Amino acid sequence: MQAREQGPSGGLQADLYELTMLSAYHKAGIAQTPVAFELLFRNNPFGNGYTVAAGLERAVRLVRHLGFADGELAYLESTGLFPGAFLEALGRWRFLGDIDAVPEGSVVFPHEPLVQVRAPVFQAQLLETVLLNVIGFASLVATKASRIAHAAGEKAVLEFGARRAHELDAAREGARAAVIGGCAGTSYVEAGRRYDLALTGTHAHSFVLAFPTELDAFRAYAAAYPDPLILLVDTRDVLRSGVPHAITVFKEMRERGALGSHGIRIDSGDLAYLSREARAMLDGAGFPEARIIASGDLDEGVITVLREQGARIDAYGVGTHLITGFDQGSLGCVYKLVAVQKGEAWVPRLKRSENPAKVTTPGVKRVLRFKERGTGRAVLDLISLADEPIPDQPFVAFDPVHTWKRKTVDAAEAGDLLQPVLRGGKLVRDFPPVDRIAASLRDGLAAFREDQIRLVRPADYHVDLSMRLLATRTALLEASLD
Amino acid sequence: MQAREQGPSGGLQADLYELTMLSAYHKAGIAQTPVAFELLFRNNPFGNGYTVAAGLERAVRLVRHLGFADGELAYLESTGLFPGAFLEALGRWRFLGDIDAVPEGSVVFPHEPLVQVRAPVFQAQLLETVLLNVIGFASLVATKASRIAHAAGEKAVLEFGARRAHELDAAREGARAAVIGGCAGTSYVEAGRRYDLALTGTHAHSFVLAFPTELDAFRAYAAAYPDPLILLVDTRDVLRSGVPHAITVFKEMRERGALGSHGIRIDSGDLAYLSREARAMLDGAGFPEARIIASGDLDEGVITVLREQGARIDAYGVGTHLITGFDQGSLGCVYKLVAVQKGEAWVPRLKRSENPAKVTTPGVKRVLRFKERGTGRAVLDLISLADEPIPDQPFVAFDPVHTWKRKTVDAAEAGDLLQPVLRGGKLVRDFPPVDRIAASLRDGLAAFREDQIRLVRPADYHVDLSMRLLATRTALLEASLD
Repeated sequence: MQAREQGPSGGLQADLYELTMLSAYHKAGIAQTPVAFELLFRNNPFGNGYTVAAGLERAVRLVRHLGFADGELAYLESTGLFPGAFLEALGRWRFLGDIDAVPEGSVVFPHEPLVQVRAPVFQAQLLETVLLNVIGFASLVATKASRIAHAAGEKAVLEFGARRAHELDAAREGARAAVIGGCAGTSYVEAGRRYDLALTGTHAHSFVLAFPTELDAFRAYAAAYPDPLILLVDTRDVLRSGVPHAITVFKEMRERGALGSHGIRIDSGDLAYLSREARAMLDGAGFPEARIIASGDLDEGVITVLREQGARIDAYGVGTHLITGFDQGSLGCVYKLVAVQKGEAWVPRLKRSENPAKVTTPGVKRVLRFKERGTGRAVLDLISLADEPIPDQPFVAFDPVHTWKRKTVDAAEAGDLLQPVLRGGKLVRDFPPVDRIAASLRDGLAAFREDQIRLVRPADYHVDLSMRLLATRTALLEASLD
Repeated sequence: MQAREQGPSGGLQADLYELTMLSAYHKAGIAQTPVAFELLFRNNPFGNGYTVAAGLERAVRLVRHLGFADGELAYLESTGLFPGAFLEALGRWRFLGDIDAVPEGSVVFPHEPLVQVRAPVFQAQLLETVLLNVIGFASLVATKASRIAHAAGEKAVLEFGARRAHELDAAREGARAAVIGGCAGTSYVEAGRRYDLALTGTHAHSFVLAFPTELDAFRAYAAAYPDPLILLVDTRDVLRSGVPHAITVFKEMRERGALGSHGIRIDSGDLAYLSREARAMLDGAGFPEARIIASGDLDEGVITVLREQGARIDAYGVGTHLITGFDQGSLGCVYKLVAVQKGEAWVPRLKRSENPAKVTTPGVKRVLRFKERGTGRAVLDLISLADEPIPDQPFVAFDPVHTWKRKTVDAAEAGDLLQPVLRGGKLVRDFPPVDRIAASLRDGLAAFREDQIRLVRPADYHVDLSMRLLATRTALLEASLD
C-alpha cells in the first residue's frame, strides 16, 4: 500500500501487446482518437442462470493509480522494443477518461457490458489486462458463492479457501467476492482487515497432534477460546473419540459456568451420517445448542445432497471449490473496442469472427432492466445504443442471436444498469461497503423467478437487443469485407 | 516492495485459526515446543504421472519477511479475540526455524514432502496458509505447463494468461511457473520484469478496429514493430481478408528491405484447417519463413489433436487453461504436523481420518531418489525416516498403501530430494534463476520412462516407504484411541 501513495505505477500489469499497440498508435498519430471499449462475458459460469458482478472498486482504484514509475519505464527501455518518444509519452500516462459500470452485487447476464470505457485509445487500450483480470476473477467467485449460498439455504456458508487460492491477492479479493455472493464470513485475516469482513475459524488437526491427547488439546483450546468454542472432532475418530471428548469439555465448561456458544467441526468422512450421529450424541448429552460445522471439499452440489439426506449441519465451510471456481476456472471476460469517435459521433465498430459467438455487438450502449410495476419482477434486460431513449410501452424486444424469439413488454419500470463511475478520470460515485453490496445482491435476486435462479438447468431470462442496435449489428456484419 | 523493506509484516496472510491456535499454544505454555510439519499433496493433478515443484523462492522470501507490523497488531486487538500478552509475543514473532525443501523444477510425486519445517510450534504453525497458497498454486501451473509443453513437442508454448489469472499476483507468479514448466515466454510484462522472463506478444482485434481498415492497421503495426512482425489475421476473415492483407504488408516490407522475422496469429475458427490453408497461402506468396502462431482456448488435449491433424502451427499461445489449471483448480496441498520433539528425539505423530487417503505418514523424513547406474533412469523414490541411512542394495521397498506391492532395488545411486533452505531462519541456499530451474526440470524428466510421463493414463512410478517408516505408521494407526 505504501508504494501506491507515491505516484502512478503499475503500468506493467499488462500484456506486452497493450504496450506495443500503444506504441503503434503513438507512431501512427492516432493515440488521441477517442474510442469506446466494453468488458463483457459470453456465458454464465457453472451452468448458472445469472452472474454476479464484482471487483469494480478494486479495478477502479488500480486504474486511477495506473501509470509508469521510473523503474518501470527503465525496464521497458531495456527491452529495446520501445522508442524514446513513446516512453516519454508513457511517462505522462494517466487515465483521464470516462468509465460507466454495473455496480458490484448486480445480477448480470451474458453480452451485457459490465464496464464501459470511453477515452483516447492511448488510455483505454491499456486498461484491458487489469480490468479483465480483476473483474473476471471477482465476478467468478461471487457467482460461485451465490450458488453455494443458495444450496445452503438458511444455513451459513463460511469462506475457508485462502490456502487453495491462486496466490495471496486471490485469497484476499476472493474472500471479499465470496461475502458479496452470500458467505457469512471468511477465515482469511488479511481480507477481514482490508474489507471489514466477519472472521471465522476453529482449529486444525495439527493443534490436536501438538498435545499428548485429543482431550488435552480440546481443554487447551477451550481455555483460550471459550466462546465461541468450536472443536474439530475428526483428528482421531469422530464418533468414538472426537465427539465424546468435545462433550466432556462442554460439560466441564458448563460446570464452571463458562460455556458460551459452542459446537464441533467435522472435516472428513460421510458428513450426512456423521452429522446425524453427532447431533444425536450432543442432544443426548444435553447440548442441543451445540452447532455442527462441516467442511471438506464441499460445493453447491454436495451441500444439496447432504441437505436432501437430512444432514444435521448448521454451517458449511467451503474452500477450494469456492475460491478457485474449480468446475470452471474463469468467467472468460473479454474487452472489446465497440466504437470510434468521429467529431461528435460514435461510429460503431464490429469484430467479425470465425466463431459466431465471438462476433461483437457494436456501439456505445445502455442496458435497461424492465421490472413489472407492482410485483417488481424483472421481465427483460434491453441492450440498446446509448443515445436511444427508453422505449414507449408496449414494445417488442428481440433475442440477439435467435432473432425470431421476441417478447412484448408492457407496464414495466426501466432502470439503467450502467452507472457513471469516472468522469475525466475523477471518481463520481461512492463505493458501498461489502455488507451493503451483499444486501443489494439479495434484493436483486429477489426480482427473478425461482426457476431462473435455480442451480441446475435454470430457465433463460430475456436479454434482448433494441431494433436499432440489431439493425446496426446486421448492417456491419453484412457489409463487404474491406 | 517498498513495504517489505520496512520490517516484518504479512502475519495476517493467514487463516484466523492459525492465530487462535498460536494464542492457545501460548496460553497452554507449549508455544516453544519444537515440532515438524510437512507440506505435501495426495494426487498428481490433471491425471498426470508427476508433479512439478515450484513456488519455493517466493514462499521462503515471504516466510523470512513474516511478522506483525503495528497496524496488523492493532487490527488483531480490535477483533477482541486475542489477549494482550499474546499480542505482545506476536509483536516479536519471527521465523527462526529450519526449512528443508525440494528445489523448484523437481519432478515430485504424491505423499512426498515438498517442504519440511522444523521450529517451535508457535513459529511453524503460522506458515501454513502462506506455504500452501504459494507453493500449491505455482506447482499446479508448472505441472500444467509441463503437460502443455509436452503436447507441443518441439513447438514453442507462450504464456498468455494474465487476463484470466485469479488476480494480479497469480498473473505474475503463474507466468514464472509456466516458464519453469516449459513455456518459452510470457505476455505479462510485470512478470518479465520481476523474473527476467522472455516477453512475447502480437496485437489485439481492437487494434484493427481502431483503424479504418485492416490493411491500415497492419501497416501501422508494421511501421512500429517491423521485427518481429506478427499480425493477428482473424478480426474479419482469416483466409479472405487477414492472410491476404498480411501478405500485402510482408511484400511491402520486403520491397523496402525491411522484412525481418514475420508471421501471423490465428485466434479463432478451426485452427487445423485455417493453419494449413494459411500455410499454403504464405508459401505460395513467397513467405515460407512466416511463422503461424495459434491461440484461443488451447490446452494439451487440443494441441495434441491439432498436431495429429497436421496443423501447421509454429507456436501456441495458451492462456486460461494454463494459468488457472482449469480442469483442476487446485493441487490440494496440505500442511501436516508429523512429529513433536521430546528432548533430542522426534516423536512421530499421526492424524487418523475417516478417509484412509487422509491418514498422514508420521515422522521427520528424507526422500531418496534411486537412479540406475549407467542409464541414469529413476527407478524408485523411497520415503524413510530422516535418521535412516541410505539402505544397502539390493533391498526391497514397499508401496505405502498397497503394501503387497514390493520392488527390489539394486545397483542404483541415491540422492536426497529435500535440501536445506533455512537454518535458524537464515538462508543457506541460493535460488537459481528461472531459466536454470526450467533446465533442471528438462533434465529431471529425462530420467523417467516415456510411459511414466505421457499425458493420458501414465504408468505409475514407484514411491515407497522404508520398512521402519511403514512399521512406525502401522503401529501408530493400530494404537488404541486415547
